Amino acid sequence: MRTCYAGQVSAEHLDREVTLFGWVHRRRDHGGVIFIDLRDREGLAQVVCDPDRAEVFATAERIRNEFCVKVTGRVRRRPEGTTNSNLKSGEIEILCQQLEILNPSVTPPFQLDDENLSETTRLTHRVLDLRRPQMQRNLMLRYRVAIEVRKHLDALGFVDIETPMLTKSTPEGARDYLVPSRVNAGQFFALPQSPQLFKQLLMVSGFDRYYQITKCFRDEDLRADRQPEFTQIDCETSFLSETEIRDIFETMIRHVFRAAIGVDLPDPFPQMAYSEAMALYGSDKPDLRVQLRFTELTDVMKDVDFKVFSAAANMDGGRVVALRVPGGSEMSRSEIDGYTQFVGIYGARGLAYVKVNDAAKGRDGLQSPIVKNLHDAAIAAILERTGAQSGDIVFFGADRAKVVNDAIGALRNRIGHSEFGRRTGLMQGDWKPLWVVDFPMFEYDEEDARWVACHHPFTAPKDGHEDYLQDDPGRCLAKAYDMVLNGWEIGGGSVRIHREEVQSKVFRALNIGAEEARAKFGFLLDALQYGAPPHGGIAFGLDRIVTMMTGAESIRDVIAFPKTQRAQCLLTQAPSAVDEKQLKELHIRLRQVEATKA
Amino acid sequence: MRTCYAGQVSAEHLDREVTLFGWVHRRRDHGGVIFIDLRDREGLAQVVCDPDRAEVFATAERIRNEFCVKVTGRVRRRPEGTTNSNLKSGEIEILCQQLEILNPSVTPPFQLDDENLSETTRLTHRVLDLRRPQMQRNLMLRYRVAIEVRKHLDALGFVDIETPMLTKSTPEGARDYLVPSRVNAGQFFALPQSPQLFKQLLMVSGFDRYYQITKCFRDEDLRADRQPEFTQIDCETSFLSETEIRDIFETMIRHVFRAAIGVDLPDPFPQMAYSEAMALYGSDKPDLRVQLRFTELTDVMKDVDFKVFSAAANMDGGRVVALRVPGGSEMSRSEIDGYTQFVGIYGARGLAYVKVNDAAKGRDGLQSPIVKNLHDAAIAAILERTGAQSGDIVFFGADRAKVVNDAIGALRNRIGHSEFGRRTGLMQGDWKPLWVVDFPMFEYDEEDARWVACHHPFTAPKDGHEDYLQDDPGRCLAKAYDMVLNGWEIGGGSVRIHREEVQSKVFRALNIGAEEARAKFGFLLDALQYGAPPHGGIAFGLDRIVTMMTGAESIRDVIAFPKTQRAQCLLTQAPSAVDEKQLKELHIRLRQVEATKA
Repeated sequence: MRTCYAGQVSAEHLDREVTLFGWVHRRRDHGGVIFIDLRDREGLAQVVCDPDRAEVFATAERIRNEFCVKVTGRVRRRPEGTTNSNLKSGEIEILCQQLEILNPSVTPPFQLDDENLSETTRLTHRVLDLRRPQMQRNLMLRYRVAIEVRKHLDALGFVDIETPMLTKSTPEGARDYLVPSRVNAGQFFALPQSPQLFKQLLMVSGFDRYYQITKCFRDEDLRADRQPEFTQIDCETSFLSETEIRDIFETMIRHVFRAAIGVDLPDPFPQMAYSEAMALYGSDKPDLRVQLRFTELTDVMKDVDFKVFSAAANMDGGRVVALRVPGGSEMSRSEIDGYTQFVGIYGARGLAYVKVNDAAKGRDGLQSPIVKNLHDAAIAAILERTGAQSGDIVFFGADRAKVVNDAIGALRNRIGHSEFGRRTGLMQGDWKPLWVVDFPMFEYDEEDARWVACHHPFTAPKDGHEDYLQDDPGRCLAKAYDMVLNGWEIGGGSVRIHREEVQSKVFRALNIGAEEARAKFGFLLDALQYGAPPHGGIAFGLDRIVTMMTGAESIRDVIAFPKTQRAQCLLTQAPSAVDEKQLKELHIRLRQVEATKA
Repeated sequence: MRTCYAGQVSAEHLDREVTLFGWVHRRRDHGGVIFIDLRDREGLAQVVCDPDRAEVFATAERIRNEFCVKVTGRVRRRPEGTTNSNLKSGEIEILCQQLEILNPSVTPPFQLDDENLSETTRLTHRVLDLRRPQMQRNLMLRYRVAIEVRKHLDALGFVDIETPMLTKSTPEGARDYLVPSRVNAGQFFALPQSPQLFKQLLMVSGFDRYYQITKCFRDEDLRADRQPEFTQIDCETSFLSETEIRDIFETMIRHVFRAAIGVDLPDPFPQMAYSEAMALYGSDKPDLRVQLRFTELTDVMKDVDFKVFSAAANMDGGRVVALRVPGGSEMSRSEIDGYTQFVGIYGARGLAYVKVNDAAKGRDGLQSPIVKNLHDAAIAAILERTGAQSGDIVFFGADRAKVVNDAIGALRNRIGHSEFGRRTGLMQGDWKPLWVVDFPMFEYDEEDARWVACHHPFTAPKDGHEDYLQDDPGRCLAKAYDMVLNGWEIGGGSVRIHREEVQSKVFRALNIGAEEARAKFGFLLDALQYGAPPHGGIAFGLDRIVTMMTGAESIRDVIAFPKTQRAQCLLTQAPSAVDEKQLKELHIRLRQVEATKA
């Protein structure tokens, strides 16, 4: 059996015999001696195969990269000048006494240390890609995070309870993955988008505190940070207030960052109302590392000659804001053109700006094509409200509020993260968590001309806001909260509705009729009638948290066997065609086949 | 906030003020005072509402069973003679100072302590059913088992790595649950029957030790102990021998039983070859508590006049066995008739028996209709080989071996577990684990006229047995092992094939052609070529282990939201019909609909 992992052999083992198992990371022939860098999940060790031992040497000559071998040998100090301080085993080497090839390897399609592999290559040969030390570290860190989460929640009396994977389709929000039933012809299970309703039912059953680290499924169009299946740290508790719930999970996240990567997050996390976040950053998940804020100008732009501003200021739901960038007047025409193009992605039809050459001179110190069409009050407001100084640039957004928020919000991040932003100190700090609270209950869906739930329809309204449910849903705030870190939403939750009559009112506000509510959520409405306790919870995105911790570019780098953006597994070739016999048993047929026949 | 759980208030809290949250388990009006048994997940506490406190008393009068309430009061000793030693809180009661109804309850459809509810009622009202103390204990125990498994494996360096839920359909063994792909028209994912191949790939990737407590799916016809989705404790390790692997997991199970329910399983577990288990018990999962064994008689029955025996003894694959039941001659005719009917379920066409009235008298001491058709050698073999004593009964099975094994194996359990068996000491011990080892690689499927894998096609043959793969597959034994407890298979595993050429040979033995093997398992064959390490593992059925620990009758009692035997969730009404729009997006249509149109 193994003495220890290759990556753990050290000066402690000097003069001892060790047995190691692992892979040939590199093999060098040097002055008639063969050196093998032996790799296992914990790291590398240098193995020396001397021509004195004929059998070992003969085997070593046959060995190639990625052969799986067993090595027995004596640990000795490396010769002076050949130590490697980057390795735990860097001071020692193993003089090989026995070398056994457990399994040879054909030549790998790429070098494991090649940094420039396409993602297609990596995912096709995922088994080799996962041998790369970085990928091993990523999955080990993911494991450590899960352990620390469990440790923390276990100690607080949270109970891990499994909820079903084959459940009911309730088309709300994202698309469901469906599973045809063989036994019940024409019927379908859905894979859960989250265990939301089941965890609420567990609270009604009296389990008091629940958690689960579990797979969830959304059949959405995939973006860089989405997967068809993803992992949620899903939590729920009874009898606690919104503040108490947030405290528990803020403490948990602080613990996990400390334990997993040695980072101390601030205590407490700052918090901000949704309305303030939208006002200052145009986003409900602002990256607080970026030291830039919106300045509201809608009120003073209503009667300026510059039509872009006045039109937006007078529009129902229009907005005009400034974004002051300190030191930004050094930006070149082409940089500004680049930003203008960038905001176009978000629907902005241009990017007005003013360079502040001399703040003391007022209008005369400004350089911009738009200044002549702004009256004095507008100029004064720009300078005073933004606090612009000489050498700054001020960008403007003017349009429907959504366009302004999206475009100038994205611009804010773009500039903050740019080379200019980093150089001029617009980025501050490494980890900036934030609670965003007081979300609206509903937002108005213009397309469908109806109110939709901002979080989900089981979110409780703020105390006193229940009265708005019927007559003024837009005014109704929710006991909902998101945990935001560096501009990413890493967790989101709420206090839930625990009274049947409030739940029914919310369904009505969402235009879900009594019959539909009963058909879809009858079991919830029933449960709420049997003394449901006040309860609430949160769900964290494990993939995203670990991605941030590793600094990986994609969540695919912290998932062992991810899908591509076309929702395919390049390794196993899933999804794939299935036998007609299987379809028949499931009482379905392909539409394509039908089309061909017709 | 809560001071502690109701079930945890004790004499330690005397004279202190406590705040509790919970449900009204019972409410009694007694001598003008209202007593509330307050229930939470940890147990009960008695709350006293005195008419002196008008407000509290008025509220208490409105309260009914299952109301959710908040109680604040002072802990005092119960009056002499009213203590309840069954409860942790049995010495004290809480004199209520504040009583708040957090949520009322309509009258529940049944009493929580009703022991005679139908399963349909329980599953339809699962939220209330889960409030029953026994169900709370079951799920808490399940949680504790999972924690202890994790603790043990974490300490041994096993890493929890998540494998995909949306994976590839490889129709082998059980039916897959399929998931139509929206993005890839006409293609389907399958839900995993087990993470088998992924965990092997993780070994090839060098993770060395893996585990996962994860959902698996089989679309099988449901029996009492099966669910469409079930939970597996799935483990794999590299570089260890079959014995070393078994040791690790035997130790784990011993630890879990000790930690979760305080049971000391034997150390070490006995082990038995598959062939011996079949010879002695007719089963590869014998219940060793039952002190009965088969006696082989095939050889001496070839030329007896009793045709049932001689036909079976001369049949290709036939078998004749005896099952001696000490003290069984007291069995009545109707009892024996009952057993005769019982073995009929397993295909036996009768149940021959001999009562031993006086063992010393040989043939003359026997009472049976068949004795006259057995020659002396047969009679002598029966008496000597079974060791029958006066007062015993000996049953016989004679048929194809499978029928004999199934029927007499079931009879063995039936008699052991019967009132007679318990009374006469045929059941010994509470917990009897066993390793069954040396399984055959293949069994012959008469219907399909081909060899099929006994475990799965990735199981390694025993050393030296590789040579039989081509010419004599039936002789080839596998490095496979099952962990059996009290007649249930609770875990099964094997050393896997780690060489591509052996894997290809096994596919050939299974009549899987090179092309088919590549299409289905190309990614595995590829992976094995890149220095795959020797590896093996095991998977345990968590549901089953917890069921045994709780003594529950069904695994449905240790699953929060199980499916019925019709694969339905009575609570949420899943599966259910879905919108035509959803089907269209998934490129499928219902066959029923087609049939109606045509």
